[in-house]
Amino acid sequence: MKVAVVLSGCGLFDGSEIHESVLTLLNLDKQGVQYQCFAPNIEQARVVNHFTREEQENEVRNVLVESARIARGNIYDLRDFNVIDFDAVIFPGGRGAVSNLCDFGEHGASCEIHPEIARVLEDCFESRMPIGAICIAPAMIACVLGQYGIKLTIGNDEKVASVLEKAGAKHQVCTAFDAVVDEKNLIVSTPAYMLARSVKEVDAGIARLVEEIIRLKHSLDENL
Amino acid sequence: MKVAVVLSGCGLFDGSEIHESVLTLLNLDKQGVQYQCFAPNIEQARVVNHFTREEQENEVRNVLVESARIARGNIYDLRDFNVIDFDAVIFPGGRGAVSNLCDFGEHGASCEIHPEIARVLEDCFESRMPIGAICIAPAMIACVLGQYGIKLTIGNDEKVASVLEKAGAKHQVCTAFDAVVDEKNLIVSTPAYMLARSVKEVDAGIARLVEEIIRLKHSLDENL
Repeated sequence: MKVAVVLSGCGLFDGSEIHESVLTLLNLDKQGVQYQCFAPNIEQARVVNHFTREEQENEVRNVLVESARIARGNIYDLRDFNVIDFDAVIFPGGRGAVSNLCDFGEHGASCEIHPEIARVLEDCFESRMPIGAICIAPAMIACVLGQYGIKLTIGNDEKVASVLEKAGAKHQVCTAFDAVVDEKNLIVSTPAYMLARSVKEVDAGIARLVEEIIRLKHSLDENL
Repeated sequence: MKVAVVLSGCGLFDGSEIHESVLTLLNLDKQGVQYQCFAPNIEQARVVNHFTREEQENEVRNVLVESARIARGNIYDLRDFNVIDFDAVIFPGGRGAVSNLCDFGEHGASCEIHPEIARVLEDCFESRMPIGAICIAPAMIACVLGQYGIKLTIGNDEKVASVLEKAGAKHQVCTAFDAVVDEKNLIVSTPAYMLARSVKEVDAGIARLVEEIIRLKHSLDENL
């Protein structure tokens, strides 16, 4: 089994949330699942100084180049992603998921999705490939696949949940330790740092998400 | 119990190795140990594009600001570290440990140590506080504390090991899954990505290191 992990930079305020990304790779590896990281080769929407939390107006960073820090250099441009090479795809959270991969962070349900991300999500959905989404990443999924009435969670934030429902998705409240599974549409989501109070809680939720993705993949294989 | 984790940037080629750093925080949290991240407020020795692996000659980044990405903004300037506030200190690996915290990467056993790092290591050693060092970080420890004949590991790299021995340290071969403990000098080290072939192997070695640091701390308490 081989899973694609799609990153959106390196750091919770302007890219992929680092703990969620590393714990995705760890839990895949612990389950004996191979992974390959991908990221779009585009400029970040913003660069944030993570010490002062201020935006660095004059700084420019590239999503693929910064994501490579998390992937230890072993990463491909998202345009090289081909659905036939993988059994599932997972999107960690972080601000990058809703500001680099799409602009949900600014425009909510009417956001624009980066064309490569839209292509990947549509290809995976049409191919009946399990999709995992962590933390705020389900918001991005809802904007592309909400029209199919998919079920997902971003924890218990009513304001964000109502935006996902506006996009057509069904939101389900979920704890940091658990994951919500849309069995019909093969989508698994977990709140991670939307709710988790510590890194071990993030690990627990992502371990559940990875288990559920493996279970969905096996049940698909059995029904072939 | 509370442990200080000293970071050196964000990315294996010019800062802290991200997986090792996150798995240090995870294993401390899983053992019920509180942690606080620190980093020196200095410029990085270099900035490396982690996708092309080329040095970015014109780019300048700050060690504290980049480390804050791993620490989710919850990080202090290393100059505010006070030995009485903590029970142990851990240094994850990555090129930053031997190029930002000291220049071992360029000058080997005769390297210069950043004064704040030297102060922290000397304070911890004199206070009989356990010190943990991961991957290449033991090289930095050897340059400051090698004069006391400390025992440590960087895995099985004979060339690097001989440099540590030149600094006065005793090197011991160790697998990725294990840790070397200097019971007398309270120093615990594990090879991590010096040897590990995957992120779960890094997790196993760091879990061992954290267990040994907790054991050393408890045995110190019993002997008071």
